[in-house]
Amino acid sequence: MLPEWVYRECPEISVCHREAAIVRQAQLTKPTGALGRLEQLAIELAGLQATEQPRASRAPIIIFAGDHGIVAQGVSAYPQEVTIAMMANFASGGAAISVLARELGSRLEVVDAGTLATEPTAGIVVDKPRHGTRDFSVEAALMSAELAFAFEAGRRAVVRAEAGQPDLLIFGEMGIGNTTTSAAIAASLLAVSAEEIAGSGTGVDAAGRARKARVIDAAIARHGLAGGSAEEILCAVGGLEIAAIAGATIAAAQARIPVLIDGFIVSVAALAAARLNPSCQPFLLPSHQSAEQGHRLVLRALNVQPLISLDLRLGEGSGAAIALPLVRSACALHNDMATFAQANVPDRPS
Amino acid sequence: MLPEWVYRECPEISVCHREAAIVRQAQLTKPTGALGRLEQLAIELAGLQATEQPRASRAPIIIFAGDHGIVAQGVSAYPQEVTIAMMANFASGGAAISVLARELGSRLEVVDAGTLATEPTAGIVVDKPRHGTRDFSVEAALMSAELAFAFEAGRRAVVRAEAGQPDLLIFGEMGIGNTTTSAAIAASLLAVSAEEIAGSGTGVDAAGRARKARVIDAAIARHGLAGGSAEEILCAVGGLEIAAIAGATIAAAQARIPVLIDGFIVSVAALAAARLNPSCQPFLLPSHQSAEQGHRLVLRALNVQPLISLDLRLGEGSGAAIALPLVRSACALHNDMATFAQANVPDRPS
Repeated sequence: MLPEWVYRECPEISVCHREAAIVRQAQLTKPTGALGRLEQLAIELAGLQATEQPRASRAPIIIFAGDHGIVAQGVSAYPQEVTIAMMANFASGGAAISVLARELGSRLEVVDAGTLATEPTAGIVVDKPRHGTRDFSVEAALMSAELAFAFEAGRRAVVRAEAGQPDLLIFGEMGIGNTTTSAAIAASLLAVSAEEIAGSGTGVDAAGRARKARVIDAAIARHGLAGGSAEEILCAVGGLEIAAIAGATIAAAQARIPVLIDGFIVSVAALAAARLNPSCQPFLLPSHQSAEQGHRLVLRALNVQPLISLDLRLGEGSGAAIALPLVRSACALHNDMATFAQANVPDRPS
Repeated sequence: MLPEWVYRECPEISVCHREAAIVRQAQLTKPTGALGRLEQLAIELAGLQATEQPRASRAPIIIFAGDHGIVAQGVSAYPQEVTIAMMANFASGGAAISVLARELGSRLEVVDAGTLATEPTAGIVVDKPRHGTRDFSVEAALMSAELAFAFEAGRRAVVRAEAGQPDLLIFGEMGIGNTTTSAAIAASLLAVSAEEIAGSGTGVDAAGRARKARVIDAAIARHGLAGGSAEEILCAVGGLEIAAIAGATIAAAQARIPVLIDGFIVSVAALAAARLNPSCQPFLLPSHQSAEQGHRLVLRALNVQPLISLDLRLGEGSGAAIALPLVRSACALHNDMATFAQANVPDRPS
């Protein structure tokens, strides 16, 4: 059983702030609509944050890492120990997301939500119910209590971040094997075959991809996931970092903090969150369309349009971090441009 | 006659720096190719800047403004005095590009390359051969000497910017009527009908767009521009700010400074530059795909793929400014990520 808070309603969009933002956009010194999607983004943020001045300045990044029993089936191009090594790389500043966090001035927290690591590593928060998931091709990946623990770990991370009064949150992930886990969750949630959704991950070839798809379809059949609930699906074929992100997403939305969703894996976690608690959906802001095959389907199910499509497929929250400056630009333009009246510029004849 | 320097060869891409960048990308702690277009961008910049550390930190923005005689034919949704009013708005900090320049830490220079302004305005460089172009529906927009002056004005702006050792340059434009001028130039350079390329500009309706297209097609026929040279086309239907940007683009490339090209109007200026001096073409980096109808065709002719497509149609250099953080991210990732060896992360088995 997932904790009761998971199902609690998220706050509603502030209609008056949203409408005030629409009025303001029409008064700024530009043809109405000339800033395209950035106008929409500022308007949406104003409603979500219930403010006249939408902000994306404070955007901490939280990476959740986990290991996956399914790697025993040879589904990844990289060895499993890369999960722990990369977690250390995040903390020591050498990974892509570490570089981006510095560039953005964003705080980066790394949470071991379920890796195989047995020793603590400096700079990493350990908050896990077990070391890696079970191999879902032979048994359920997680027991119900382990899943609940991971949701709580996600919520605890959001509570820690709230101390810094974030304008929005970025969640990232690391876990060798987790595109397979995510594809299994997405195929189950969307009731499509794994072939439609399993991608190359860190770089398996066509044969590897076919193997992933077979493993996933067999597991979905074995666990009888057709028509299953999000909770059943997450227990059967889930991942600890993915469950933590789902929990964190709901907790953020409940605290009125929009989430800039990253690539395939984080989007699958967001989709699970939206299935568990549909009231969190408006708080899910899209960032990028990744090169991973299944991402398009998941974004469509979330009913969001990505801001960028640059063939990124790294994960770690990197796609959301790369898109963050676009959100910041949208806010700055909305808040800081002069109106026609202020600048004494003639508006178009009406 | 355009000045002799316009035709001078631009420096070549540094093949050794480009290749070193490719090698480095393969050593960074990520699956090769996982940063998609940002990897390509860093590699391309390394070759253009002839450096091991591609940079986009110092990216000054220069806006060229001009007025257009063709507005007498009722082609714009806004009155002509908006050109001068917006120029003042750029300088006083209230326009979109002013806000973006502050956000980016970019120096903003505003050059009056040919508006109707008769008095100097604080903070604006005046460098123009005349006040506005002639109405190209009845006569040539510019005399040959006026066109040459505008190219020189563009080059002078680049020389001023060079004092700050820019990593790349962004050019913007302002001029009521200049989507009509740009569409006329583009239709002539690409030998397509105006119907294919004339868009809504600041917001004319379908009837207004049809009127623009008729005005342009008639002018192309009147001036006999089919098969004309870029210089003939710019004299017949050009604009002073567009000519200045073409000159600035060539001057920047000759100084080995890449140019992040903005939307439809700046792209048309870049296309004219590339026709006059094809060696500048590698220095033209794409930023965005605008909502203006003809932009796609012009970008295709320039053989560049935009980074973002957010339905922007404001001009001023704003699309390039909005895309600049993506270039900065590409550079930071390239320069600052750890290699597999440095981070002690196992690479994939080869």
